[in-house]
Amino acid sequence: MKHISDFSEGDHIREIFLFKGISHAVTKNGKEYLNVQLMDKTGSVDGKIWDPGDPGIDDFDKHDYVEVNADVNVWNNAKQLNIKRIRVASEGEYDPAEYLPVSSRNNDEMYKELLSVIDSIQDKHYNALLKKFFVEDKELVKKFRTCSAAKTVHHGFVGGLMQHTLGVASVCDFLSKSYPVLNRDLLVTAALCHDIAKTKELTPFPENDYSDEGQLLGHIVMGSEMVGAAAKEIEGFPNIKLTQLQHCILAHHGKMEYGSPKTPALVEAMALNYADDTDAKMETFKEILENNAENKGWLGFQRFLDGNVRATL
Amino acid sequence: MKHISDFSEGDHIREIFLFKGISHAVTKNGKEYLNVQLMDKTGSVDGKIWDPGDPGIDDFDKHDYVEVNADVNVWNNAKQLNIKRIRVASEGEYDPAEYLPVSSRNNDEMYKELLSVIDSIQDKHYNALLKKFFVEDKELVKKFRTCSAAKTVHHGFVGGLMQHTLGVASVCDFLSKSYPVLNRDLLVTAALCHDIAKTKELTPFPENDYSDEGQLLGHIVMGSEMVGAAAKEIEGFPNIKLTQLQHCILAHHGKMEYGSPKTPALVEAMALNYADDTDAKMETFKEILENNAENKGWLGFQRFLDGNVRATL
Amino acid sequence: MKHISDFSEGDHIREIFLFKGISHAVTKNGKEYLNVQLMDKTGSVDGKIWDPGDPGIDDFDKHDYVEVNADVNVWNNAKQLNIKRIRVASEGEYDPAEYLPVSSRNNDEMYKELLSVIDSIQDKHYNALLKKFFVEDKELVKKFRTCSAAKTVHHGFVGGLMQHTLGVASVCDFLSKSYPVLNRDLLVTAALCHDIAKTKELTPFPENDYSDEGQLLGHIVMGSEMVGAAAKEIEGFPNIKLTQLQHCILAHHGKMEYGSPKTPALVEAMALNYADDTDAKMETFKEILENNAENKGWLGFQRFLDGNVRATL
Amino acid sequence: MKHISDFSEGDHIREIFLFKGISHAVTKNGKEYLNVQLMDKTGSVDGKIWDPGDPGIDDFDKHDYVEVNADVNVWNNAKQLNIKRIRVASEGEYDPAEYLPVSSRNNDEMYKELLSVIDSIQDKHYNALLKKFFVEDKELVKKFRTCSAAKTVHHGFVGGLMQHTLGVASVCDFLSKSYPVLNRDLLVTAALCHDIAKTKELTPFPENDYSDEGQLLGHIVMGSEMVGAAAKEIEGFPNIKLTQLQHCILAHHGKMEYGSPKTPALVEAMALNYADDTDAKMETFKEILENNAENKGWLGFQRFLDGNVRATL
Amino acid sequence: MKHISDFSEGDHIREIFLFKGISHAVTKNGKEYLNVQLMDKTGSVDGKIWDPGDPGIDDFDKHDYVEVNADVNVWNNAKQLNIKRIRVASEGEYDPAEYLPVSSRNNDEMYKELLSVIDSIQDKHYNALLKKFFVEDKELVKKFRTCSAAKTVHHGFVGGLMQHTLGVASVCDFLSKSYPVLNRDLLVTAALCHDIAKTKELTPFPENDYSDEGQLLGHIVMGSEMVGAAAKEIEGFPNIKLTQLQHCILAHHGKMEYGSPKTPALVEAMALNYADDTDAKMETFKEILENNAENKGWLGFQRFLDGNVRATL
Amino acid sequence: MKHISDFSEGDHIREIFLFKGISHAVTKNGKEYLNVQLMDKTGSVDGKIWDPGDPGIDDFDKHDYVEVNADVNVWNNAKQLNIKRIRVASEGEYDPAEYLPVSSRNNDEMYKELLSVIDSIQDKHYNALLKKFFVEDKELVKKFRTCSAAKTVHHGFVGGLMQHTLGVASVCDFLSKSYPVLNRDLLVTAALCHDIAKTKELTPFPENDYSDEGQLLGHIVMGSEMVGAAAKEIEGFPNIKLTQLQHCILAHHGKMEYGSPKTPALVEAMALNYADDTDAKMETFKEILENNAENKGWLGFQRFLDGNVRATL
Repeated sequence: MKHISDFSEGDHIREIFLFKGISHAVTKNGKEYLNVQLMDKTGSVDGKIWDPGDPGIDDFDKHDYVEVNADVNVWNNAKQLNIKRIRVASEGEYDPAEYLPVSSRNNDEMYKELLSVIDSIQDKHYNALLKKFFVEDKELVKKFRTCSAAKTVHHGFVGGLMQHTLGVASVCDFLSKSYPVLNRDLLVTAALCHDIAKTKELTPFPENDYSDEGQLLGHIVMGSEMVGAAAKEIEGFPNIKLTQLQHCILAHHGKMEYGSPKTPALVEAMALNYADDTDAKMETFKEILENNAENKGWLGFQRFLDGNVRATL
Repeated sequence: MKHISDFSEGDHIREIFLFKGISHAVTKNGKEYLNVQLMDKTGSVDGKIWDPGDPGIDDFDKHDYVEVNADVNVWNNAKQLNIKRIRVASEGEYDPAEYLPVSSRNNDEMYKELLSVIDSIQDKHYNALLKKFFVEDKELVKKFRTCSAAKTVHHGFVGGLMQHTLGVASVCDFLSKSYPVLNRDLLVTAALCHDIAKTKELTPFPENDYSDEGQLLGHIVMGSEMVGAAAKEIEGFPNIKLTQLQHCILAHHGKMEYGSPKTPALVEAMALNYADDTDAKMETFKEILENNAENKGWLGFQRFLDGNVRATL
Repeated sequence: MKHISDFSEGDHIREIFLFKGISHAVTKNGKEYLNVQLMDKTGSVDGKIWDPGDPGIDDFDKHDYVEVNADVNVWNNAKQLNIKRIRVASEGEYDPAEYLPVSSRNNDEMYKELLSVIDSIQDKHYNALLKKFFVEDKELVKKFRTCSAAKTVHHGFVGGLMQHTLGVASVCDFLSKSYPVLNRDLLVTAALCHDIAKTKELTPFPENDYSDEGQLLGHIVMGSEMVGAAAKEIEGFPNIKLTQLQHCILAHHGKMEYGSPKTPALVEAMALNYADDTDAKMETFKEILENNAENKGWLGFQRFLDGNVRATL
Repeated sequence: MKHISDFSEGDHIREIFLFKGISHAVTKNGKEYLNVQLMDKTGSVDGKIWDPGDPGIDDFDKHDYVEVNADVNVWNNAKQLNIKRIRVASEGEYDPAEYLPVSSRNNDEMYKELLSVIDSIQDKHYNALLKKFFVEDKELVKKFRTCSAAKTVHHGFVGGLMQHTLGVASVCDFLSKSYPVLNRDLLVTAALCHDIAKTKELTPFPENDYSDEGQLLGHIVMGSEMVGAAAKEIEGFPNIKLTQLQHCILAHHGKMEYGSPKTPALVEAMALNYADDTDAKMETFKEILENNAENKGWLGFQRFLDGNVRATL
Repeated sequence: MKHISDFSEGDHIREIFLFKGISHAVTKNGKEYLNVQLMDKTGSVDGKIWDPGDPGIDDFDKHDYVEVNADVNVWNNAKQLNIKRIRVASEGEYDPAEYLPVSSRNNDEMYKELLSVIDSIQDKHYNALLKKFFVEDKELVKKFRTCSAAKTVHHGFVGGLMQHTLGVASVCDFLSKSYPVLNRDLLVTAALCHDIAKTKELTPFPENDYSDEGQLLGHIVMGSEMVGAAAKEIEGFPNIKLTQLQHCILAHHGKMEYGSPKTPALVEAMALNYADDTDAKMETFKEILENNAENKGWLGFQRFLDGNVRATL
Repeated sequence: MKHISDFSEGDHIREIFLFKGISHAVTKNGKEYLNVQLMDKTGSVDGKIWDPGDPGIDDFDKHDYVEVNADVNVWNNAKQLNIKRIRVASEGEYDPAEYLPVSSRNNDEMYKELLSVIDSIQDKHYNALLKKFFVEDKELVKKFRTCSAAKTVHHGFVGGLMQHTLGVASVCDFLSKSYPVLNRDLLVTAALCHDIAKTKELTPFPENDYSDEGQLLGHIVMGSEMVGAAAKEIEGFPNIKLTQLQHCILAHHGKMEYGSPKTPALVEAMALNYADDTDAKMETFKEILENNAENKGWLGFQRFLDGNVRATL
């Protein structure tokens, strides 16, 4: 497969792209044509369909994968495709990982790790709650496995939510061994659930943007509500266990000005906040360094790290 | 009825008090006796029961109303009761308004006003939701009518929550008439529901303190969850109406650092925030002036008003 | 009248514009020509006068209304006028409302409402003060009726200051009825005077920009000084009434970091601050929604609302 | 003269005190008596007048200087006077400097220095303005010479305002020589006027407390208004000179959160802010060190210096 | 050994105490006597020596351990010792752990763990630097093993600095395994050195207070300087390794307002900041819960956790 | 010499420039050519070398001064040089002051003033320390005399550091005369040393950018370390004098959030902070006014003055 970043003027290409959007336009002579946006994991390119009625131009919808025959032009310093034929490709003809940013960790392995963490939770109520979410609710599992952890900041790729969740759970597991004051079952359960409502706050890939509900309510409150609703369906789930778990979720941003309606009042809530921050910041820093791999000097002010940073020599 | 503030040394009294607490003690000679704390709306007084086994000394529990026969002493500059007889009083023997701070507005009238505001809501889903809370759920109605709006700051009295809720709804009603951009049904419904979970966040009078659940989750999140759960029981309640209502509740403190997990994104959420602030601050200022009615000068720094204030001349 | 927003390439137009500015330039061949900026309420357009010495080219000054004969060209994707003739138009030939943003409320009606609010003030000193400003001082009245309430944020149109002042007075009137602790005469007088020095802080339309005095002193301090000077001319105006009124004006931004040299120490000052904020924010939100009427989704971060907002669905 | 700090139990004293306040009381036997508060510069002492009707007990008012014959007792670990005779002392019998904190600089010399600074101002309008305040307005001169610069923070003594004003003017004079960008006449005039309204903000000694007007309006705004009013009485005072001078006064606290309604927009305003801060902080530090002269170690957190400080070794 | 907390009125005791301070006093009859302060790990008690010249009363100095024969009295509700005999005890007669707060971890074992962490550092320069500090500099080792990590906040006991250092190093070791972006040698070396200058910032037990140098310079800057000076004595220590290590130390408080002159610019500096915070907060929370072990409810606002907290149920 | 700002299209020039950087490029026909950046004190210009192998094209390195023969073209609205010949110029052929921003004060005179300030320090240890830095360490003297005081903010020119240092020392000298509480020797020594590590934090002109060490450690900490190292080489330098001097350097930014790890605890540290701020702000204001000399109105928001400013009229 030849990627968008490798196209040169004069190339004749026949490749599968992810179709992102379309707009209708008119030439100076009054003839209608189509502008389409196409992407793969290396970037985006615009294409022109000058004869929308042509037999080689099939119908297609947003987020379809489409095979395109086209010539590569350069116009106004930007590459452009002159599209001759376009058709919807079938599953199997393409590898989604070529079109979307994807976690470097294997998705099945991450899910297996998730199940094994759940198995380590001895409290039967917390264990039942986790299975309800991560085993029984097939739709949630599917979303959880593909969702990103953020629109842009960190873990902004397919599988990013699961990878971040496992990262936080791993830090929490370590902390619960190092600091006996911590209740491991509560802490690790909270770690697994803390961002669960990102499956609602963010729309699925390839859009990966905030949903209306996400913007208006936020994953913190929605996560607490999801946990509350699920616990109510588990017989005998003690109220205090639920309240403490919800508190950990509500307080996991650590401070009110970061969107937590409550600050940590339990030691597990405080530990979760540190674990979440640590995993997020380590990944953010790593991604910034990777995105600037060729630059061995100072990378300038980084908003998400609140400072000017550089790779260690 | 003679009030605690009017007791003088040497009085023999026979009055009904609200019983607040007890501690066991031992005299220098090793004899057990009891210290009890009694209150009415004018203050508190300690009493000694030197012979707990005496036949005139009945059993009683925290928050009982008790009739007491006693002599008034002064010890260490403080008045003290030497209790001869004590018994639990029956409902009807006393008027709770004599023992607890109570709204100056009539409770039944306030509730009638509440119902009439609900009747003015034309959106059938919001109307149904409000009736579910304020008419059908008898237990909630009872709590809502007696709950305070706060432990200390403002409206810290029986009926305070209902009075504050009506005050906010009244400002919102005015604003919706003055600013056509506002959706009155959404705004007034949000006003009536915005503090509804204070019925859970605060324990009933005479305790009127934060509950565990209240401390860990807060009335903002619990209120949003109550609204979500109630709406789910109303057939056909549109999701967008629910989300927008929940958003208004979540955002009603206006800023994250004041405990709102979301800042106002809808004009009704912004209006509710101003209405809530205005009613709270007007009442706070009024209470401070009333509590210092004898002082015509500067009252010093007032934490809840964030400044030094005085009565207007 | 054909508006700038409706011009197309090839049009021959003859319209009256508001003249905003001019610059002199030289062609590659060394010939002098003029660039002029013209506006109506739908936008701005540049015009070229290739032969400044031509008999059809009259003299004109900044902020003149000018009648222009011209052809419409497009150059660099922007419309441009090729001006053949230009002359100063006389009052009566044009309607200023076509050239400047104007309040949607009728100016005379607003002024009538202002007078009736003044009539409702029973305190004779405050009443006299208001009449001095809003009835007797003809020049001030003229400025007050046309001034905007701000350069950009909200009410940034002809009549905006009067509309905002009435809006704040209306909220204050409502509050004084709802909260008896408030002294209505002081509060409503303060509402009417709170932004009176915007007539000095901002230059008249069409400039509507900060004056030097406005930048250096600000409308808060200048307003207090205007009130002080006017009161000194009213016999027997009690000092305490003046000081309290000036305090309300000085404190109406609520916090020092918002430019108030004093924070509210009187309940009327606090109420005025809430009323001012509420009217300003409701109008700001409304204007943002109107300016984005075609966009039913999220409007992005809005600096003056400090968040991402959207229209209620 | 024997000072209060030197009294011992059993002393019989006959001294002149400053009389600060009085309260009426009743003995257990129902007999009326008087509690009076007396002070000299070393502290305060309470006195009892057991027989108010006694011929040796003259009338006296708050802030009178009174001569007292009394015995010194100790009661509850505090010294107390048993007053036998009391009478109002005449001017000349006492030295006010013994009763109030007084600048260590000679008052006449400071005033002479002030006049010579005024003489150095070459701009005729600023010079006339300064003479209006500091020479022609006799009442203002009297207040200005005795007023303190603050209730507590720094220069809180008789003559403190004049001393601080001269200190700031001296720094400004130095700066105007070092940085030619500064307009000396504007800067030094602003220095002399910057705190002039402290004569209104603070009540005269011995009270030295905030006046109502001071609390409600503040010396910054009142100072700007005083300058504005005075300039209007000087023929031909150019408006721009007045506005720039008022700006310097309004901005002299440097930041809005410190009570300046405008931040420095002119280089003289910025210089004045630094000069004011420097003089105030140097004096504050000096006073703290003097008040702790015996303590050679760390003095603990000092609110007005925002830190823990110590004397340099 | 009988501890101070177990003393009752009337006891005759003969115990060894740590002597904290002394003051001279005079009885009403003019006779001199001594007040001494004595402590063990359970608290403090005052003692009176009525006959300082008595043969049983030996000389002693601050921080001596003294054996005391005395009767226990109660005066003003406080226990007091009436001291008959007092003498300086010799090393061996007492166990210092009975007199000072001590880490619950064995000191030798902690030191062994420290040495094994050092052994795990493969970079020869960092390894040499660590051995220079923690093996070769005997005086530093002694101080480091006994120093606390703070005057009050957390780890405020003998061995606290070493325990905290090991805790931080352990978190860093875990992070370096979880996040390959981290350079383990740099990170763990920085962890071991980050608070090394607390040995200078705090005076030795039993005083455990800030030294002058500590107050004026702080452990962050002094630690960076110690590392710089030590590295200069190691041949061939690369400048970039030193600078990066010093940066980690300087930035370990994470933000300037917490006293770090630089914010983290390297990923190891950021990791160290999180590890330090996590270990400090977990220990702080644990200590607060232990100090309130009997209280199962809310513990009120805790300054060092910035909130109201409670034990998890 | 003809300056870059005076070049016009079609000029043939032969001038000496400072060479700033180079990049290699290829024409559409595949021929290599060079882009070079050249500067003088009036600005920068790009040049093309179409035939790098030409005999007139000598070798040259970054920061060389080069003589260039070229034609001036305009391309894309920017001037460009078509370079025919280029060679490295020798010292003496050019005046560096024509190529770099330079202090308006004479460098030798400033250094003489520096020496005379050092001579005025009577404390022998401080005097020795200053001589060690500013007389004996020739390399440091050279750097100190040419270094700027900042990359951009203020004194960003050759000699800027020395000029700023003298400015601060002059203010400190004045303050020590006005406020006897100040120890002049400590204060002026601290003034001379406060920014000494800017010689390490910034790279030499013409780069004048942050060094790696500067970014990671900062001039505050490096300055304290330089002073510490130098004092150790002076026999008998008292520790307390060193610590107090280091404290002044560490605290000279006044607040932690401005990068000082300690806030001023000594009166000299506080005075130094004010003197540093005053000199920096006066110079910043002056430079902004000079850079906008043609603009007599408002200059817009100035980041380094935190406000909108203008020249005084």
